[in-house]
Amino acid sequence: MKFEVLILGNSSATPMFDRHPTSQVLNFNEQLFLIDCGEGTQMQLSRYGIKSNRIGHIFISHLHGDHYLGLVGLLSSMHLVGRKSDLHLYGPAALKEILDVQFLHSETVLRYNLIFHPISPDGPGIIFENRTMKVSAFPLTHRIACTGFRFDEGPRARTLLGDVVQALNIPTVYYPAIKKGMDYVDEKGDVYPADQLSLPAPKSRSYVYCSDTVRTEGYLPYVQHADLMYHESTFLHDMVDRAKETFHTTALEAGEIAKETHAKKLLLGHYSARYRDLAPLLEEARTVFPNTELSIEGKWFLV
Amino acid sequence: MKFEVLILGNSSATPMFDRHPTSQVLNFNEQLFLIDCGEGTQMQLSRYGIKSNRIGHIFISHLHGDHYLGLVGLLSSMHLVGRKSDLHLYGPAALKEILDVQFLHSETVLRYNLIFHPISPDGPGIIFENRTMKVSAFPLTHRIACTGFRFDEGPRARTLLGDVVQALNIPTVYYPAIKKGMDYVDEKGDVYPADQLSLPAPKSRSYVYCSDTVRTEGYLPYVQHADLMYHESTFLHDMVDRAKETFHTTALEAGEIAKETHAKKLLLGHYSARYRDLAPLLEEARTVFPNTELSIEGKWFLV
Repeated sequence: MKFEVLILGNSSATPMFDRHPTSQVLNFNEQLFLIDCGEGTQMQLSRYGIKSNRIGHIFISHLHGDHYLGLVGLLSSMHLVGRKSDLHLYGPAALKEILDVQFLHSETVLRYNLIFHPISPDGPGIIFENRTMKVSAFPLTHRIACTGFRFDEGPRARTLLGDVVQALNIPTVYYPAIKKGMDYVDEKGDVYPADQLSLPAPKSRSYVYCSDTVRTEGYLPYVQHADLMYHESTFLHDMVDRAKETFHTTALEAGEIAKETHAKKLLLGHYSARYRDLAPLLEEARTVFPNTELSIEGKWFLV
Repeated sequence: MKFEVLILGNSSATPMFDRHPTSQVLNFNEQLFLIDCGEGTQMQLSRYGIKSNRIGHIFISHLHGDHYLGLVGLLSSMHLVGRKSDLHLYGPAALKEILDVQFLHSETVLRYNLIFHPISPDGPGIIFENRTMKVSAFPLTHRIACTGFRFDEGPRARTLLGDVVQALNIPTVYYPAIKKGMDYVDEKGDVYPADQLSLPAPKSRSYVYCSDTVRTEGYLPYVQHADLMYHESTFLHDMVDRAKETFHTTALEAGEIAKETHAKKLLLGHYSARYRDLAPLLEEARTVFPNTELSIEGKWFLV
């Protein structure tokens, strides 16, 4: 089951070196989730071949422009290209006010349902859940209210032992039940236990998104054991004072956080406009957490 | 004296084929004026080597997203890169409300003065004037209140006849006065009339910007005799019904308007996302107004 993230933008507030502000598309089994929506996101979606109308849910971490200024353009274009399906939007309560004033003055009445879910800045909580995916928000510590997001895959299916079930002539209609862990009972009443017919389900995967935040202990309980952790790394550690002052994180700190929370892999991003070359950020994080990669625009990363 | 316009975006509302929404930079003698500011304008400025802090005045025609959604990002980036100089912004009154709500929730207090000049939608008027340039707004007819802009160069200097003034040993300190048309009187009281020392001043130039509008007679008095007229041409004329319905203009109509108002040159733009190839729009306008060009992103056009 596909679970991967496409980077649409990796820049901090001032876009430079043709880097775009923050936005990511999470593809979980062809359900598309958009995380943050900086200016130009609709053009980036188009550049990387993602049809915006396939996105069902948009999550906005906070109301700094580099994380949401592409939203009105994207929502308007969805309207113009004839979207009919519901769109769920999750973000700070004031986001509604920002959208409403702009739709009011442009006299835009969207052709589809935009369902807004305000996120409480006060504590962690599940903001979306279906059979296969659960999304939680948790508070980060930034200059203004900001939340991170955690995407947890639901229980996965066991892996069917094809040779075994075929040799036993088990009808295919029972396969889904066996994959869920049920035993098979044949017409004679003989029982074939699930663990003889299938391998244990692989571990469910999780993606964690942390941008923007200063390093604190506060959110660490919510980001434990991520298969893939995206963590902002605006600065190199020689600028840790500036990072604290602006409520951002350094690449070294991002590596330490990934290590302390037992992440499997770390993805850096939200790079300051001062760094043309990103290699030093990667090297710095890898000194404490070797399995680190740079988020690069247009690149998909497996969760 | 330089007077030219750089196209940053030429797309209508839905950006396609890597075309960006509307924005233009007018360079008049190194004074930079920004006209409209669609999403991504700050990135386009950077791509074409324009330092945003050189822009002193921004003019917004109307509150459809493809004409202003890049504004908050641009104003914020000017703040982040340390702008100190005043910035004058001209646009519909509600633009102030749209900016305020976003600066409020992002807790942004700009480091420079942003001086907002609401444009009356009711009638034409001068909105900016200095010694060398006058900018007027005039009402267009679109789905929502929309204004066009006219940039009129002030009186130009006469051309000094270098050989003549040098032969007469006229001190250089008098040159500016002669260029303004004053006679020269030497120490003996002999008078040298200005027209013996200089050639008549070249005609002052004007740039006219019309986007977005349906074709009407209403604004034609304000766009007469433009040296360069930018006129939207969202559709080909086979879609004239759609153009009227959406309050836009066809390429043929743009050509006719340029002809009727005695423009010297016409620049097309605001192309619908349905046209990958723009040549048919150009050909159509040229059937009635041969001196037409397509506005192309990154290209400068002389006024």
